[in-house]
Amino acid sequence: MPDRTEIDALIELMARLPGLGPRSARRAVLHLIRKRALLLQPLADAMQAVASTARECLNCGNVGTADICPICADEKRGNGQLCVVEDVADLWAMERSGVFKGRYHVLGGTLSALDSVGPEELRIPQMVTRIDAESVTEVILALNATVDGQTTAHYIADQLEHRVALSSLAQGVPIGGELDYLDDGTITAALNARKRL
Amino acid sequence: MPDRTEIDALIELMARLPGLGPRSARRAVLHLIRKRALLLQPLADAMQAVASTARECLNCGNVGTADICPICADEKRGNGQLCVVEDVADLWAMERSGVFKGRYHVLGGTLSALDSVGPEELRIPQMVTRIDAESVTEVILALNATVDGQTTAHYIADQLEHRVALSSLAQGVPIGGELDYLDDGTITAALNARKRL
Repeated sequence: MPDRTEIDALIELMARLPGLGPRSARRAVLHLIRKRALLLQPLADAMQAVASTARECLNCGNVGTADICPICADEKRGNGQLCVVEDVADLWAMERSGVFKGRYHVLGGTLSALDSVGPEELRIPQMVTRIDAESVTEVILALNATVDGQTTAHYIADQLEHRVALSSLAQGVPIGGELDYLDDGTITAALNARKRL
Repeated sequence: MPDRTEIDALIELMARLPGLGPRSARRAVLHLIRKRALLLQPLADAMQAVASTARECLNCGNVGTADICPICADEKRGNGQLCVVEDVADLWAMERSGVFKGRYHVLGGTLSALDSVGPEELRIPQMVTRIDAESVTEVILALNATVDGQTTAHYIADQLEHRVALSSLAQGVPIGGELDYLDDGTITAALNARKRL
């Protein structure tokens, strides 16, 4: 059907999104075509807007529409605390909790010998520069509790030893978590880090 | 973060796609922003192209970029067979199999007393008109094997009785299907429609 090429091209592009495959991309595109005015046109406009304005913050690596993101630009958030995360998604997750009032530093991944990701690929030098430039007193490592995440945390801790206060997120039972469903590692970590009441 | 409004707007729109929720929409948008040049911009362009060209075929209800879809426009497919489907997705599924050489008629749903969907909402009158106009000799009901689909099939069969040859897709064991995993209804249908070898 030569006539369907635009639609086929859209399906093919949609199928490349994480979480969508060829089948769900077809469903999504049909849904979009049915809601041309209400959803497809606004979505095309929103994508165009993001495509032309989105950029990474030159300072922390957060994603926004300015060279310096609102968090880095906010004087009040320069309180000496720097939260180091792997990814922008982790930064957004921290921001949703609303509990952290300092600034972030997005590494853009984890150290990985296999994928030959070294400190330079990870914006670790920029982090060291920021520690002096922004008078950081405490670095909070909010890296994922995976092998790669913890390897990276150890490396950063080695680099920054004696220069700033270092901490990492507590490990333990998640709120609402049931022991029966938790893995051994989490239970071990929660027991080792038990708190006196 | 006032600065992130365009990105937030995009996430909100993406979350309205079938198969995506707020979390997977965030993941998809971050992925898009990382691949601005390779994916986000082409996707924005493809959506814009579909938004401005996609329309329903005035004859059969298929989705394409012309007022009359390529299947309806193709003389060779006017072979007297008309395949009635609920939805454009079903038409595409039939076309992928490549086995049907006639034309389609997309109902746009099923009859439903609860949702007050009557024959007029379903393009059934247009189907009756087409049967005369296109000298249809056989109507093949390829409706879903659900209660609503079968109700609609019965209604159409009543309407067309004695006017054309009527058939519906065979029911039975799907290719590659294992009896152990099939529901009782399918096994019953397959046994009742058993074929002599």
